[in-house]
Parts: sequence; structure tokens; C-alpha cells
Amino acid sequence: MTEVATARRSRITPEREAELYEAVLDLLREVGYDALTMDAVAARTRSSKATLYRQWGGKPELVAKAIRHGKPGRAGDIDTGSLRGDFRMLVSREDDCTMERNSALMRGLFMAVHTNPDLLRAFKELLVEPEMDEFRSLLQRAIDRGEIRADCPALEYVVHMLIGAFATRALIDDHPPTQEFLTSYIDAVVLPALGVPTV
Amino acid sequence: MTEVATARRSRITPEREAELYEAVLDLLREVGYDALTMDAVAARTRSSKATLYRQWGGKPELVAKAIRHGKPGRAGDIDTGSLRGDFRMLVSREDDCTMERNSALMRGLFMAVHTNPDLLRAFKELLVEPEMDEFRSLLQRAIDRGEIRADCPALEYVVHMLIGAFATRALIDDHPPTQEFLTSYIDAVVLPALGVPTV
Repeated sequence: MTEVATARRSRITPEREAELYEAVLDLLREVGYDALTMDAVAARTRSSKATLYRQWGGKPELVAKAIRHGKPGRAGDIDTGSLRGDFRMLVSREDDCTMERNSALMRGLFMAVHTNPDLLRAFKELLVEPEMDEFRSLLQRAIDRGEIRADCPALEYVVHMLIGAFATRALIDDHPPTQEFLTSYIDAVVLPALGVPTV
Repeated sequence: MTEVATARRSRITPEREAELYEAVLDLLREVGYDALTMDAVAARTRSSKATLYRQWGGKPELVAKAIRHGKPGRAGDIDTGSLRGDFRMLVSREDDCTMERNSALMRGLFMAVHTNPDLLRAFKELLVEPEMDEFRSLLQRAIDRGEIRADCPALEYVVHMLIGAFATRALIDDHPPTQEFLTSYIDAVVLPALGVPTV
């Protein structure tokens, strides 16, 4: 809804917006965040730099929005009727190839965040916070169903557990994260920490 | 024991070895991994490059050994009588200032690992694997005491949980990891996942 509204306000069609985000992700994979220029985005997408700045404010915001747009749907829309089912659906939306590609992209951006406070801020505002809101609604439904106790202390660490597993997998085990790894990690760690039985 | 043996073999005293590692960590904090040269290490420590290469093999090995040496003691030596006590002792060995300093250093090296496969290999061999062995002996004692079931599926993910929390803290919450955060995370996530009661 929000994206359509944004597009209308600025007279950029959703299709054109999607095309632009795709071009930004391609450029990010090709040259990385630091070498990515608004000139290159403008050239690749045949738009004017003025339009890009008016629409997004700057490179950090454009990149954060492009990443968010590339994510498969909204976690908050997943509603299988059980938390375990929701997590499995969440993991199954990206096949292993896509996950490996995105894991490399995210590692690169995690590096860039380290030296670009503007990118860190844009990431938090436009990517991490909205994702956490989505996640909270998924968890809230599990609380409402009685699967998780409302005062379960692990609730505030679900994102740490999931992003942490994703980020450390390559470092510790020499493999990119896969659906199988994440599913096994969710059953072994996340659900028990939340007090949800896995069988 | 191993370090004394290494020092003897090469006729470098443990004191001299410690001094060298300190200099490497200082240089890493000042210039980062990529800009660190064996020439600079040799100059700072008044040693010959030939000695450095003979003793450590190369820059990735020297850096990995220096990091390991900077860690406070061996996790495997901690033995308070309960897993929760052991984790608390583990967390309390580094005060928040040291943790923040080390967190910045590790983030920098995590970035360097991404573009230096030799450093990744040295890290795994000289840092991650030995730490995991130490950790396994700490967990094994908890299994022997009957605190953790030997077939608990979370056992293989303890390092992912801990390193993951440490690594994602700054990104998600805008704070460096602290003793309080790690203690709370261990009580909320790690112990429940391992099936160990926290009260």
C-alpha cells in the first residue's frame, strides 16, 4: 500500500519503481556500495539524477528501499495457523541460490554500514524497523493463539537469533545459509527458546 | 602449553611473544587488516621480517594468533559447577569497555575476512576451531552433570547463538554488546534452547 501511495505521489508507476530498484540491486552486486554512484543509477535507468534525489533523498535511502523491495513479500502476511508453519513458510520463500546471492549482497552491505553512518540510519529506518514490525505481527498472532507466553523473554531476541544465524553461518561453517540449515536452526534454537514445542 | 612449546621451539620467550601480539593488535586498531604490513610489525617490534615469517608463516596467521592471544584465558578452564555459572563467568571476563573495543576490532576483521580467503582460513584454523574445542569441553561438563541432554539439537548451534548475538547487537540496537545484554540473551535464548532452567 505504502509503495503504491509513494509512487502516486511522485508520479512514478510501481512498474517503473520496481525496474529502478532492480537496476540498483544489479549495480550493488557489480560494484558494491562505495563505488555505486547516483550517476551510474541514472545512466542505467535512463532517469535524471534530479528525479532520483527528489524521489529518494539520496543514495543510502535508495539502496535501503531497493533491498526492501527485493525481499519476497511481507513476513506479516504469512499466516499458516502455527508459528512453526509461519517460520517454515518464511524460510521457503527464498531458494538456496537466491539466499546465497542475497547473503553475499548483505555481507557487502554490512561492511559498508560500518563506514557509512547514513547508510546505517537508512537501513534501520527503511529496512530493519519495518521488517521488525512485520515480524512482531507474526509473533503477536502466535501469542494470541497461546503458542508463546506474552512475557517470554526470548521474544525481544527473535531477530537477533535469526539474523545472527544467517550472518555467522558462512564464517563458522564454510557454507552459505540454506533452507535446510535455517529450518534446523529454527527447530533447535528459536522455537525452544520461545517455549514452542517442535513436535 | 601449546604456546610455550611453540615459543621454545623457536627460541622466542613467552614475554616476547606476548609483546609482539600486543603490537599487532595495536596496529590492527590503528590501520586495519588490509593496511597492516609485516614491515610495520617488524619496525614496531624491532624484529626482522624473516623472524616473523619463520615464526608465523605469514600475516593471516600472525593476526589470528594475536587475536587468540588477546582473549582472556581459555573457556575450557572455566568450571563453576553449573552451565549458567560458566556462561556468567565467560561474560564477566571482559568489561564493557574492552568488549566495545574488541567488538570494533572484530567487525573490522569480519570485513577483511570477506576479501581475504587466507585470513578466513587462518581464522578458522587458529581461532574458531580452538575456541569451539574449548567450548565443547565446557558443554561436555554440563552434559556429564546431567544439565543438558547429550542429544539436544541446540548443542551444535551454541557458537552461532553467541557470535550471532554479539555481531547483530550493534546493527539492530545501536549499542555495542555489553555484559548486561549478553547475560540477558543467554538467560532468554541460549539456556532455554539447551533445555537448562534459568531459575
